[in-house]
Amino acid sequence: MGGTFLILNAGSSSVKFALHDAHTQARIARGAIEGIARAPKFTLHTGDEVETLHTEGIGGDTTAQIDWLLSVLNDRLGPLDIVAAGHRVVHGGKEFTAPTRVTDAVMARLAALSPLAPGHQPHNLAGIRATARHWPGVDQVACFDTAFHQTLPRCAQLFALPRRLSDAGILRYGFHGLSYDHIAGRLPVLLGSRVAQGKVIVAHLGSGASLCALQGGQSVDTTMGFTALDGLMMGTRCGQIDPGVLLHLMRTEGLDADALEQLLGHESGLLGVSGISPDMRDLLASPAPEAAEAVALFVHMILRQIGALTATLGGLDALVFTAGIGERAPEIRARVMAGLGWLGLVADDAANRANRTVISAPHSRVTAAMIPTDEEGVILRALWDIALR
Amino acid sequence: MGGTFLILNAGSSSVKFALHDAHTQARIARGAIEGIARAPKFTLHTGDEVETLHTEGIGGDTTAQIDWLLSVLNDRLGPLDIVAAGHRVVHGGKEFTAPTRVTDAVMARLAALSPLAPGHQPHNLAGIRATARHWPGVDQVACFDTAFHQTLPRCAQLFALPRRLSDAGILRYGFHGLSYDHIAGRLPVLLGSRVAQGKVIVAHLGSGASLCALQGGQSVDTTMGFTALDGLMMGTRCGQIDPGVLLHLMRTEGLDADALEQLLGHESGLLGVSGISPDMRDLLASPAPEAAEAVALFVHMILRQIGALTATLGGLDALVFTAGIGERAPEIRARVMAGLGWLGLVADDAANRANRTVISAPHSRVTAAMIPTDEEGVILRALWDIALR
Repeated sequence: MGGTFLILNAGSSSVKFALHDAHTQARIARGAIEGIARAPKFTLHTGDEVETLHTEGIGGDTTAQIDWLLSVLNDRLGPLDIVAAGHRVVHGGKEFTAPTRVTDAVMARLAALSPLAPGHQPHNLAGIRATARHWPGVDQVACFDTAFHQTLPRCAQLFALPRRLSDAGILRYGFHGLSYDHIAGRLPVLLGSRVAQGKVIVAHLGSGASLCALQGGQSVDTTMGFTALDGLMMGTRCGQIDPGVLLHLMRTEGLDADALEQLLGHESGLLGVSGISPDMRDLLASPAPEAAEAVALFVHMILRQIGALTATLGGLDALVFTAGIGERAPEIRARVMAGLGWLGLVADDAANRANRTVISAPHSRVTAAMIPTDEEGVILRALWDIALR
Repeated sequence: MGGTFLILNAGSSSVKFALHDAHTQARIARGAIEGIARAPKFTLHTGDEVETLHTEGIGGDTTAQIDWLLSVLNDRLGPLDIVAAGHRVVHGGKEFTAPTRVTDAVMARLAALSPLAPGHQPHNLAGIRATARHWPGVDQVACFDTAFHQTLPRCAQLFALPRRLSDAGILRYGFHGLSYDHIAGRLPVLLGSRVAQGKVIVAHLGSGASLCALQGGQSVDTTMGFTALDGLMMGTRCGQIDPGVLLHLMRTEGLDADALEQLLGHESGLLGVSGISPDMRDLLASPAPEAAEAVALFVHMILRQIGALTATLGGLDALVFTAGIGERAPEIRARVMAGLGWLGLVADDAANRANRTVISAPHSRVTAAMIPTDEEGVILRALWDIALR
């Protein structure tokens, strides 16, 4: 069997991709277009080489950008014999609880979920459609960020809303499930089976950020809710907020849903509090007190939510950091760990600065670790399981 | 010095009052009109006597109801020589951080805060105006539910919103401050100075409900936010909720601010999830699975928030239950305590069922206690301090 697997993670601000040999599963290439809205940057990794490619001709909406990307990849590395494609899809609703082969009927149902993740789902589906145009008839598989959280107990799913709304699907779904799935799979290997079967909080800290409480490797609580606005403070998203604030802004500033979404989803978080940047690297490098305050609030909200999820778990055996900030900001990891002495967590500062896997001291009651995430790897496994059987 | 103090706590669903001798501070009478919206019930306690009085002639808006109450009290117990009146006022904003003598200018500024607590502040101010009509020129003092939380550190006050909104006063204020003030004052007496100076969470569980984290007797974190909608699940309020839910309801059901406030403030919480009643007593007595689910969610949200506030405190020395449910529902206290074994809390079941003050076992690492609240007592002390000096 020959051919190539395409893996696509199409978001609002970046499109990540990977190409794998469908027979050996070996990776042929990977890369991303980042900063799409402002200054697109296209990096391509093939073997040991990394190139930054020109982005002339890119533009328009996500669909046009993905079309451009697929054409460039085909010209540069092909012609590609794509035999199956796997896609990250943020929202699977109540219906899609496992990777699913895409049909016209499935696409229609996924499109109907777009209002629940307006900043993500349309981009994900644009990637599926673009792939079908370039390689008609190819097998496509959707992998859902919500699926990993299907194990949430009822109380973790419910908001205290009238029952008709919960029955209609207004529930906590949780996101970043592909990332948590990957980490849950790495725990027995990296931290041992005792920890992997215990009470673990995974902190996925990227431009989007959430926590997941794992018990026996399964999600039992998470900080994102019905949408990806809830929970932790993020690059441009507010996270947890008093619903009364929204009512006040509707009344006093006349904001409608689109204006509130723009404010709370794109102008808040690290960007809003600092007034400087949504990027943690910029804030850690800035001498401005507003930057320091944004970082302090980011850590405060993580600590508060670690407390909440520890209550759900009834204790804590391990804390795992992952994703952009979690993997590459030892300063943030150090501050979070310093705030958890009350749980018996003792950091190993040298290990933390060196970006090792285990970053807590040997006598620490809670094991702290840094484990790189690999959402594309989870999609690859799903492709292998589904598309070729 | 002769005369009488009037203490008024005028809310949306009840008006509580007390009359004290201004010289001896001895209480002459206390009572309440409850269930104003549906079936008003007027109880009057004088000495050891309790009477349920007729409510004929009551009606109209809060102002009319308070006018009626003051007339009945004057007829029944008077003529009253009111020399000073103290009032619970929910919102003092950033400006009012201590009990304040009411002037026309103060009233104007308090009225300007009404949009921040539309379900409470107008009723509080109606009580002040009614008192001024009945006893013109009398000294009046406003005592603020927000004032106790002026010690909140900056990170506990901030939402992750654009800085211009925080600068404009969209902050976590916190409420139930008169209740927390009373409890903080009782801690050294009832639990000893070591606990009183330590890390304490007070759970004010009534038809409104919140938690306050005390460090050295001062508020350092709380679950209510900019308004009284946030935090714990309540009788009819949703508490913490993904802001994305509001955006979704605006878009799919066309709800405006008033409709959202009605839904999240008056049709959610215990009432919404159970579909049966906002009253914990009804739910604990009900065999319906929906009632059990509402109670389970109520406890789950308390436990999650106790975890969050314990993280802010960096540990926990004591947990205090107060207010209607906290004082009179041993079943709820038992369930909350059972969920905190991970903090080393061991309940004393017999003491809990007997409604004793200390309800944890002698070897419990966290002291658990039940302490009745007394918001009117806090107002009385403020009256004594301010009005007569």
